[in-house]
Amino acid sequence: MTARLKKPPVPQGFEILNELQPLKPVTTSKRAVSSDQDVFMVKAALEESAGGEGALVRCLASVLRRSLDQSYNGAQTGRFHLAQLSKTEKAHTGSLFEIELQKTLDLPDGHDTDYQVLGMDLDAKFTHSRKGAMPSWMIGPEIEGNIALLATADDYSSVWSAWLVWVTPGRRNAGRNRDAKASLNVAGRKARIPIAEDSPLPPNDLLQRPADAYEVMRHQGQGRGQKRILELCRRFEGTVLSRTTVATVAQQLDPVKRMRANGGARTRLAAEGFLVLGHESGYVPVAKALGLPMPYSGEFLPLRVSRAEVSDPEPHFLDRYGARWRRARVGEVTREVPDLVI
Amino acid sequence: MTARLKKPPVPQGFEILNELQPLKPVTTSKRAVSSDQDVFMVKAALEESAGGEGALVRCLASVLRRSLDQSYNGAQTGRFHLAQLSKTEKAHTGSLFEIELQKTLDLPDGHDTDYQVLGMDLDAKFTHSRKGAMPSWMIGPEIEGNIALLATADDYSSVWSAWLVWVTPGRRNAGRNRDAKASLNVAGRKARIPIAEDSPLPPNDLLQRPADAYEVMRHQGQGRGQKRILELCRRFEGTVLSRTTVATVAQQLDPVKRMRANGGARTRLAAEGFLVLGHESGYVPVAKALGLPMPYSGEFLPLRVSRAEVSDPEPHFLDRYGARWRRARVGEVTREVPDLVI
Repeated sequence: MTARLKKPPVPQGFEILNELQPLKPVTTSKRAVSSDQDVFMVKAALEESAGGEGALVRCLASVLRRSLDQSYNGAQTGRFHLAQLSKTEKAHTGSLFEIELQKTLDLPDGHDTDYQVLGMDLDAKFTHSRKGAMPSWMIGPEIEGNIALLATADDYSSVWSAWLVWVTPGRRNAGRNRDAKASLNVAGRKARIPIAEDSPLPPNDLLQRPADAYEVMRHQGQGRGQKRILELCRRFEGTVLSRTTVATVAQQLDPVKRMRANGGARTRLAAEGFLVLGHESGYVPVAKALGLPMPYSGEFLPLRVSRAEVSDPEPHFLDRYGARWRRARVGEVTREVPDLVI
Repeated sequence: MTARLKKPPVPQGFEILNELQPLKPVTTSKRAVSSDQDVFMVKAALEESAGGEGALVRCLASVLRRSLDQSYNGAQTGRFHLAQLSKTEKAHTGSLFEIELQKTLDLPDGHDTDYQVLGMDLDAKFTHSRKGAMPSWMIGPEIEGNIALLATADDYSSVWSAWLVWVTPGRRNAGRNRDAKASLNVAGRKARIPIAEDSPLPPNDLLQRPADAYEVMRHQGQGRGQKRILELCRRFEGTVLSRTTVATVAQQLDPVKRMRANGGARTRLAAEGFLVLGHESGYVPVAKALGLPMPYSGEFLPLRVSRAEVSDPEPHFLDRYGARWRRARVGEVTREVPDLVI
């Protein structure tokens, strides 16, 4: 919330730079919210900005994922969950969410709140929560009369929720803390209009399997980045690893290099039968044949493979010479990888 | 300010990851501030954390520079001044400052505020300001009784200031806004203990010369990054260009490539007599001979040079064959660069 922030004028001599401003959406005069019907209209407007109802849900999921990832700052710190953050960093996720949402939906600044939608003031609030526990947003008096977008996410359970609510005076709790912020009361919670409830959050790969994540990340210290990446591929075989996960585990300037050939995981794990699929089109037939998702640019999918007999029941793919390969079985020893046309 | 943020417990199954936590400084029990003398002690403790009085000033200058640069997010957006930010992004500089300061000085979390120093609670507040204008920090009631570190910076004039103050009830203004935040009153402003006032901020190269920055940045659109970089070198000849400036102007994944040889500025501007100094030791004799600062890693110093006669009065350096070179004179036409041992 940024209600009190004045817009400082561009000082003399710098006006020329105004021509370079990226075109920002223009804030119009303020329209008061007059009923909960207005909240439905704001929801419809947000959906239209995103490209439809499903698109708004996907957009919020992705904005929340990026806000959490930016809070962890894994590429520089190797961190990947909430307990590793300082108090200021935990609080910061909310600011990141506000900014990412505004950029993604291209919303103009609000008068008394973060944004403006259909001329009405809208404020975004994020709070970390646990699945099942009641999230609590502390809402300041400057939001009263306006609409709040309340969001929460639980990265351990990979779920998120978001609601819109018209914050009227009767909808905040009376017992307020010293800075006049208050949570929604029962009436306020009932008045919330859901955008999504317990919707799936793009997963934080490492939090999906904490014991394996521990084994990957315990190799700390200078020059252990490649070791961590190899352990990541071994323990997360069959999982599409996000760009963030790779960067968090490698924790160095060019993380992708650690996954590729020329000394990266592709070279080093070949003798253990690991094929590391990337986004290149040459990997499409492999992913397709095995019924696996294709990695996007920056993502990787480590797979342990084995030569296949014609009689093998599993799905197979062909190498550049037409030989059959399949995913390795549990316990099967593998020592080579196919030659593919990438 | 993050007073109300509860520490969510690590959920079951994830406790194993606690062993991976980077060692965070431990918050001890809270000691109340009892006099302005305590503020001097906190100042001395911060200086000790930084490595001395001068080091604290340099540290804050660098923290403020990084906070502003992160707000602009130039590498991804090409932005480099305040007027280009949205309301949420402007407010966000304060969060970035809080986080950067905590990391840099390795401060433990506070009880009711951001940090703890000598057992006392300390809260950091940043506000954008203009040189000469009175900066105003809105201070919430939860800061009362504790110490505030108040900082401000003006990136157009390249100055910053910071103070420490014990926020007693009598030091905030009576006229409070709705969310109970208030600015310091006269007594509060008088009680501030300066860390630095109008101290030089590491410069934002592009804001040093707005008309030239305009000519550099007006080449917008796909594939114009190299063109902007060449214009940057031409117009900022003799200036050490920061990593941030290069990234903001190039606005692409590998900005440094645009400055180097192999198709970057070093190759393309050789025919105009531009030598682009980098951090490599081979450039040290050149910088030394010409009395110029050496660029650090990621920085570049574009220089227009010319062959020198023995009779030329200017300082000179030698190329790998022992021939003399000097900086080009105003209006002098130059078409070649020396061959150096880099």
